[in-house]
Amino acid sequence: MTRCVVLTGYMGAGKTTVGHALAAHLGWRFIDTDALVTEMSGRTPAELVGEGETHFRLWERQAIATLVGQEGLVVATGGGAVTDDEARAMLAAIGPVVLLDAPLEVLWERVRGDARRPLARDRELFAARHAVRRLLYDRFPLAYDTRSGEPAAIAAEIAEDLTKGGATVSVALGERSYDVVVAPGLLSELPRHVPGDPGPCLLVTDEGVPAWHVEVAVAALRLGGWHPWLERVPAGEASKSLSWAQRLYDACARAGLGRHSPVVALGGGVVGDLAGFVAATYMRGVPLVHVPTTLLAQVDAAVGGKAALNHPAAKNMVGAFHQPRAVVADPVTLLTLSEREYRSGLAEVVKYGVLGDPALFEALESGAEALEGRPLPFLSHLVARCCALKARIIAEDEREAPGGPRAWLNVGHTIGHALEAVAGFERLTHGEAVAVGMVLEAEVGARMSLTEATLPERLRVLLRRLGLPTAPPALDTESLFEAMRLDKKNRGAGLTAAIPTRLGEVAVWPMDDAVLRQVLRGAF
Amino acid sequence: MTRCVVLTGYMGAGKTTVGHALAAHLGWRFIDTDALVTEMSGRTPAELVGEGETHFRLWERQAIATLVGQEGLVVATGGGAVTDDEARAMLAAIGPVVLLDAPLEVLWERVRGDARRPLARDRELFAARHAVRRLLYDRFPLAYDTRSGEPAAIAAEIAEDLTKGGATVSVALGERSYDVVVAPGLLSELPRHVPGDPGPCLLVTDEGVPAWHVEVAVAALRLGGWHPWLERVPAGEASKSLSWAQRLYDACARAGLGRHSPVVALGGGVVGDLAGFVAATYMRGVPLVHVPTTLLAQVDAAVGGKAALNHPAAKNMVGAFHQPRAVVADPVTLLTLSEREYRSGLAEVVKYGVLGDPALFEALESGAEALEGRPLPFLSHLVARCCALKARIIAEDEREAPGGPRAWLNVGHTIGHALEAVAGFERLTHGEAVAVGMVLEAEVGARMSLTEATLPERLRVLLRRLGLPTAPPALDTESLFEAMRLDKKNRGAGLTAAIPTRLGEVAVWPMDDAVLRQVLRGAF
Repeated sequence: MTRCVVLTGYMGAGKTTVGHALAAHLGWRFIDTDALVTEMSGRTPAELVGEGETHFRLWERQAIATLVGQEGLVVATGGGAVTDDEARAMLAAIGPVVLLDAPLEVLWERVRGDARRPLARDRELFAARHAVRRLLYDRFPLAYDTRSGEPAAIAAEIAEDLTKGGATVSVALGERSYDVVVAPGLLSELPRHVPGDPGPCLLVTDEGVPAWHVEVAVAALRLGGWHPWLERVPAGEASKSLSWAQRLYDACARAGLGRHSPVVALGGGVVGDLAGFVAATYMRGVPLVHVPTTLLAQVDAAVGGKAALNHPAAKNMVGAFHQPRAVVADPVTLLTLSEREYRSGLAEVVKYGVLGDPALFEALESGAEALEGRPLPFLSHLVARCCALKARIIAEDEREAPGGPRAWLNVGHTIGHALEAVAGFERLTHGEAVAVGMVLEAEVGARMSLTEATLPERLRVLLRRLGLPTAPPALDTESLFEAMRLDKKNRGAGLTAAIPTRLGEVAVWPMDDAVLRQVLRGAF
Repeated sequence: MTRCVVLTGYMGAGKTTVGHALAAHLGWRFIDTDALVTEMSGRTPAELVGEGETHFRLWERQAIATLVGQEGLVVATGGGAVTDDEARAMLAAIGPVVLLDAPLEVLWERVRGDARRPLARDRELFAARHAVRRLLYDRFPLAYDTRSGEPAAIAAEIAEDLTKGGATVSVALGERSYDVVVAPGLLSELPRHVPGDPGPCLLVTDEGVPAWHVEVAVAALRLGGWHPWLERVPAGEASKSLSWAQRLYDACARAGLGRHSPVVALGGGVVGDLAGFVAATYMRGVPLVHVPTTLLAQVDAAVGGKAALNHPAAKNMVGAFHQPRAVVADPVTLLTLSEREYRSGLAEVVKYGVLGDPALFEALESGAEALEGRPLPFLSHLVARCCALKARIIAEDEREAPGGPRAWLNVGHTIGHALEAVAGFERLTHGEAVAVGMVLEAEVGARMSLTEATLPERLRVLLRRLGLPTAPPALDTESLFEAMRLDKKNRGAGLTAAIPTRLGEVAVWPMDDAVLRQVLRGAF
């Protein structure tokens, strides 16, 4: 649950008007940091800037510091507050930072000639300063255009985005139980979900995670009393290696992590797997907190306790079951995903609908086009729903016992993994491969009379509307068979798959070889 | 429980006479492989050898093959059976191989002029052949001198050694429960204790483990239907590394181990830790069987599920809790330990007496000198007793929770680890360091009035009788303090130790700094 909102933006963006409206909407208190500075120092910002900008920034930091840890505030910052590293860190820890924005021309029209704004006198200076500020503003994932909207309407939209659709899902595993918390803006509240007394912790992320999310996590942990040691590994599967694990152990030792010091994984599946493995094995296991920042990780990878490293011989060959102590899923991080990553994540959401949640599937059908705009309340709802289903499955079958329901989660994956392996990641992401895999497995099921005849087409239609592929790129059928055989080597005889039978149900069943061959051949 | 005994030895060593006596003693059936060959082939060994030795060996293999898997047999082999690799492997899997031995002169006197023994005609040839055979015989840890004894007395001794004192200890951990089986000759029965359907398995050992034990384990696994992939790592702590783990993962992949394929650790603490870590993490955990071959590993390291690797920053820094599915402790392996290794293991046995078993301590006091001869029934009893106590502690406190009884197992280790670290392994083995550590910690306890005044001296007397040191080599006190501080870094404030208070009881308590300093200074 968002406890404070921070509004920032250039002069004239509407921080004060929208801020008042938002505070009124939420029943919270409005704070203007410039006003707070005046109150504390007895001088106006203009007067303080006159004594040197550094002087003003020091007062501003002190003002902002008084707000850290409070609840129910809408904080409007001076336009330059976010340029100061220390002030920005505190703001990030107070609550989600929302950028109010409008085209330069609009901003200029709003402020020109305002006597209280010394910077609003010269059009050139105004524009130059804006261009510099832009570089910083572009980091903020939460941005609202105030050009046309009424302050009240914009405030309502922000309130809707930041306070609706969150949920807490419990994963019931006895003494290993934990919560999956889903809510926009949660990253600012990270320390609330990190177990134990503050001390050193390891924060693992990768170069694919936008700098702003890392900055928010670091700031929130620091202001929560933690000493995060940040390790940023290269993005991509190659980081899931024993040699990267070794570097992280080094970091743990150097940072002074003890048996109760947590490892925090901030990123997608790769970071979660690597950091999870290190947490499972450093000092025979230390607390782990997953902070998934991709849709795939939020709905799937971060929940369930699987951690793994790759090995030249096979993906995920080395690993552990190590349940996290908390999963902190902030849908705001989904706003920075590339289009392809985002859509790939949606394929896994569809998977949950297929394997156990018809209502979720129908919600996707109703809202497929709306999802293009990444509406936060809808995303929060989807993530929470997927996690709830996965939590039920994990609670019943923590370690993927033979015949257990955890195998249901492999819908689309038997064929999907083979497609991924043969096509290569560049041509097919994991989510895309799963999308195609689900369609083909449903098709195989239909031809084996296991699956309702209409399901494959219904699935195809939805996936297409979500911008996902439903047929594989041209690949050699025999290579696919070979890849599936390798993959299933350890699961007993027959190419078994979790085959969708009807919406919300799967059967773990061997695929008829001839039918599978027919479907694969027909697919290209 | 030994199910068969195999007697081997040179011509005239008494295999037939002692074999009959042993069979009578145990109520088992006596089998002479030469007689069996005659029965099966219709010809005497001499006749078959006349057709070429290879010819005879083929018949001999066939005869021995009929005995594999039977129970209640005393098998006397032809003197040369053990020179044939395949026959020897089968014999090793039938039961413990016992060498009957006597000086060459005695053997010659017994057989010279025996018309049925073509090889007993020429003294030179007899001696030359014996010299060659000796190289092989020296591998067998179980050897009995038949020079002076009556066959019945020797048989009684063998029976006593191989059938007494064994025990099965259950470690009660819910679904992770397992048995610790202690009995001489158990190595031949290894497959009975390896879980699952036979298939590929990884057998990890080190270069310090005598070849014969490895041969027995491999043969037993093979004849039990397993395909053991043998990996022999260098002896010593340096093998507990991520890079060795990586090589073992490679081996697992090459051997085709799946999620249910076991890893078998045959060796001391290093092998157990390394193989345990690999078993904990290959495919997120596969079954593990510990076959400890040192006294230290049998009484301590193999039970409890701790696995760890070293890291440049600290010993055992990377690890996992991964309970084995069985612990198979064969005291016969203790017969091949070096004197120093053996005595170091006894220090850990003393530790169990100190921390929770006064009767065990008293048994050591009564039998200290007898232990020099490594009597199997006594050793079996000691190992079983220590495992029983450790099992109770583990059942109560699997993961060393703060305040839990698992900390009791650290008696002697707070000071001991520091001594080890500062003195180096060459000067002080782990067991020796623990011996000295126990004395010094008891001394600290006595001066803090926590410990019965007579305990330190009683401990010293016993350790000395067991050939263990009771005072440290000359070391710098400040370095010891530094090492203790580093070691306890993660256990909260104060130099806490499990201090012996009176026989069978310890208190986990901070050591008074001044007293500790006094004791350490006085110790050199």
